[in-house]
Amino acid sequence: MADDPLRIGGVELTSRLIMGTGGAPSHEALHEALVASGTQLTTVALRRLDPRAGGSVLDVIRDAGIRVLPNTAGCYTATEAVKLARMAREALETDWIKLEVIGDDRTLFPDPVELLDAAETLVDDGFVVLPYCGDDPIIARRLEQIGCAAVMPLGAPIGSGAGIRNPYNLRIIVEQASVPIILDAGIGTASHAALAMELGCDAVLCASAITRAQSPARMARAIAGAVEAGRLARLSGPIPERLYADASSPDYGRPDLT
Amino acid sequence: MADDPLRIGGVELTSRLIMGTGGAPSHEALHEALVASGTQLTTVALRRLDPRAGGSVLDVIRDAGIRVLPNTAGCYTATEAVKLARMAREALETDWIKLEVIGDDRTLFPDPVELLDAAETLVDDGFVVLPYCGDDPIIARRLEQIGCAAVMPLGAPIGSGAGIRNPYNLRIIVEQASVPIILDAGIGTASHAALAMELGCDAVLCASAITRAQSPARMARAIAGAVEAGRLARLSGPIPERLYADASSPDYGRPDLT
Amino acid sequence: MADDPLRIGGVELTSRLIMGTGGAPSHEALHEALVASGTQLTTVALRRLDPRAGGSVLDVIRDAGIRVLPNTAGCYTATEAVKLARMAREALETDWIKLEVIGDDRTLFPDPVELLDAAETLVDDGFVVLPYCGDDPIIARRLEQIGCAAVMPLGAPIGSGAGIRNPYNLRIIVEQASVPIILDAGIGTASHAALAMELGCDAVLCASAITRAQSPARMARAIAGAVEAGRLARLSGPIPERLYADASSPDYGRPDLT
Amino acid sequence: MADDPLRIGGVELTSRLIMGTGGAPSHEALHEALVASGTQLTTVALRRLDPRAGGSVLDVIRDAGIRVLPNTAGCYTATEAVKLARMAREALETDWIKLEVIGDDRTLFPDPVELLDAAETLVDDGFVVLPYCGDDPIIARRLEQIGCAAVMPLGAPIGSGAGIRNPYNLRIIVEQASVPIILDAGIGTASHAALAMELGCDAVLCASAITRAQSPARMARAIAGAVEAGRLARLSGPIPERLYADASSPDYGRPDLT
Repeated sequence: MADDPLRIGGVELTSRLIMGTGGAPSHEALHEALVASGTQLTTVALRRLDPRAGGSVLDVIRDAGIRVLPNTAGCYTATEAVKLARMAREALETDWIKLEVIGDDRTLFPDPVELLDAAETLVDDGFVVLPYCGDDPIIARRLEQIGCAAVMPLGAPIGSGAGIRNPYNLRIIVEQASVPIILDAGIGTASHAALAMELGCDAVLCASAITRAQSPARMARAIAGAVEAGRLARLSGPIPERLYADASSPDYGRPDLT
Repeated sequence: MADDPLRIGGVELTSRLIMGTGGAPSHEALHEALVASGTQLTTVALRRLDPRAGGSVLDVIRDAGIRVLPNTAGCYTATEAVKLARMAREALETDWIKLEVIGDDRTLFPDPVELLDAAETLVDDGFVVLPYCGDDPIIARRLEQIGCAAVMPLGAPIGSGAGIRNPYNLRIIVEQASVPIILDAGIGTASHAALAMELGCDAVLCASAITRAQSPARMARAIAGAVEAGRLARLSGPIPERLYADASSPDYGRPDLT
Repeated sequence: MADDPLRIGGVELTSRLIMGTGGAPSHEALHEALVASGTQLTTVALRRLDPRAGGSVLDVIRDAGIRVLPNTAGCYTATEAVKLARMAREALETDWIKLEVIGDDRTLFPDPVELLDAAETLVDDGFVVLPYCGDDPIIARRLEQIGCAAVMPLGAPIGSGAGIRNPYNLRIIVEQASVPIILDAGIGTASHAALAMELGCDAVLCASAITRAQSPARMARAIAGAVEAGRLARLSGPIPERLYADASSPDYGRPDLT
Repeated sequence: MADDPLRIGGVELTSRLIMGTGGAPSHEALHEALVASGTQLTTVALRRLDPRAGGSVLDVIRDAGIRVLPNTAGCYTATEAVKLARMAREALETDWIKLEVIGDDRTLFPDPVELLDAAETLVDDGFVVLPYCGDDPIIARRLEQIGCAAVMPLGAPIGSGAGIRNPYNLRIIVEQASVPIILDAGIGTASHAALAMELGCDAVLCASAITRAQSPARMARAIAGAVEAGRLARLSGPIPERLYADASSPDYGRPDLT
């Protein structure tokens, strides 16, 4: 929304949906989904790119006029991730990096130790670092203290579509943060994205839920709408939750039917 | 959405958000929220109306060009509800009725026995009956069999803002229904509305969550957006939920950094 | 527990686990499970019994010295259920009846209308009526008002093993009740049974979760233990739930390690 | 259970409930609760002890004939924790240590980086290390690889009574582990403990839920019973969960009432 922009590393984004590009059935489908999503920031795995080749995912993103956020997907150590980030900076002429250092093939959960190590090196090296992390508030705060421009906790494993498995940790992370918190990984459908924003996230990253849906472009619209709806709902001061009923009319009672 | 209208009793609605009017802080605030919601159908408690008086809630609804759906809020027996429905038909010149027969002051849960009784009488009497019921699939089917134009199960007690306490029952109700299922009662925020639609509801009714939010008009936009997002998500074929990760890129692996 | 008995219809039970008998792989396995469960009250479907035949489930129950509670499983109307209850009274010489009137083959949810009708008739006829009902607080109260000796709401569909899908409704039912509330249907494992008791249920009925487990007798011990644990926990005044931590030691802080 | 002991660091425990001692209203109440719990291993915060003083918590534990597990509660750095562990070894003549390195006053969540550091040092130093960690499977595996004798993930913040906020992560931790997994922190009541065991934990640690309940000794019995019930349930092969019903009798149908 134009009057409620997200600011990361000095840049203003009016869309709070960041899209990932993996998993799309074709470049056409990806292009359609990117446009439908309204996203202004899109991640791409550098190792899958040859920036000089034509017809790449990168061209699709650039054609759509969207800022590229290279990631370090596939790295298992700080050393690898730092090396890849530097290659990305050179190849794509951006010092933004979505930092991923994976600990495990099966969960694709980040390795907190390698992640902190890589984040520190890259921040020192002048990068705008957006690290993908677990939902541990201690790690989230450490990443902020190191100087990351935003912190990107997961809701559930990458591609699981399971939503936000621990909304309590997410609340705690949001309550203590002073940089943007971007929900990364786990989103499966629109209500998950709305919930993330209602819990106080500043933005949502989403790849598979869009690119692997049966109708990627329609799902992109759905999730973009849900991100905005969740943001608006949080700003609107929702009613508190109650066990019992609360009649919408204060004079609720028997009508006079005598 | 224009290309995906909801049909109830021969009428087409392009908005799938039905608004209730109780709880608004002022007529101005209500008017703003109604407009912001984009709703085309709005409930009003007949017993709180004097249709002849000026400046009533009814005027607000009519000014906004919205179809009125009178309800029988406050009735505890079939007899009362039937009587009130007939008064509503005469006063408001509509044979549509949102049928409420409450069993309990504290929960405001419907009384299934009185509800079925009243529904049968009103259907026989030519009404287009939209009954507010619990989330019991057996009662939902009975209401459909009687000839109700839609069935309106609750998600949680009226005004509780607790969302959908039993999504399983709602799924079962949706799977067996051949009339529209409209989630009634319980919605507290945007993600609840999106979830209702993702579970297969055809529409959502919402009053307190909007009228009693700190910013009713903004919350109306939030929930309207979430209803549409949830509908789109359901139509988009979401990815299945998994325990473990699924890399968005099939060739996920270590980058070649040698 | 001997010092905390459950009273139903003038009878004292020191075990709060009621067992169902359907689904057991053999009479031997059933006998073992019944003994392991410590149950003092066991349901049996009359229509599957020939009380005169030897080697029946009934013999197994009687051999174990357990009170028989005939049920009306398989009935879809009040008329059928009342007829079967009367047959049970005559054949088994008990005026206790677990009343089931099913509305649906797929959910096996009770039909509230037929159920209330049958309950009224049977109470008038002198039966000690224990009705299986949904988790609707209005129906639960009506059953109590009719004069049922206990009310048996479901947690989830029979045999689903899904636990308690709507603990809020169960809490509401318990808070308003003055007859015993027995959780019926849905239990799949020990923690479900413990939760039912913690929510305030007076007892738990369990069949498939025991009889169809891979080790029925061991599962009978598990669930019996969980019922007792849940009861004790409720009586022990649990700590309230908090979002953040609360150190178990009030003087929590840095140790003096200088 | 005698035939299903837990083995940690070469020691066999027939009780799978480990008790913490913080929060008890008096030494008498603590003694009663310890006995009622049947625990064979009990944590104590060294910094709150003066091992030479009479009438300490330590005397209570020793009187009850229970093995002492000193912890490093209150430490915020690896250096502090290692120092305290060594003091504990000397003072209490045990090389077992429950390792806590806290990252935050408000959540009392562990700091993974300091924790791994301290664990490595203590394992090298010959300690039997039982580390309190978050529910991150990557950290859990690293702790196992370092050589910890067991891994103790939290369910929710210490003293929160909130149970297991992310059962999925716990399942993943259990599935990958080859040392005992002990649920630490978060237990509020019996059903939480049963669930932890059903998810595959090998034991449960519990302090506040017992010591701060209104009736500590009764709650100790409740939670001890639930731990055993959950363990038995897991070993019994529970039925799978289903959306719809599954009649406990395969020939479920209408009784022949003609």
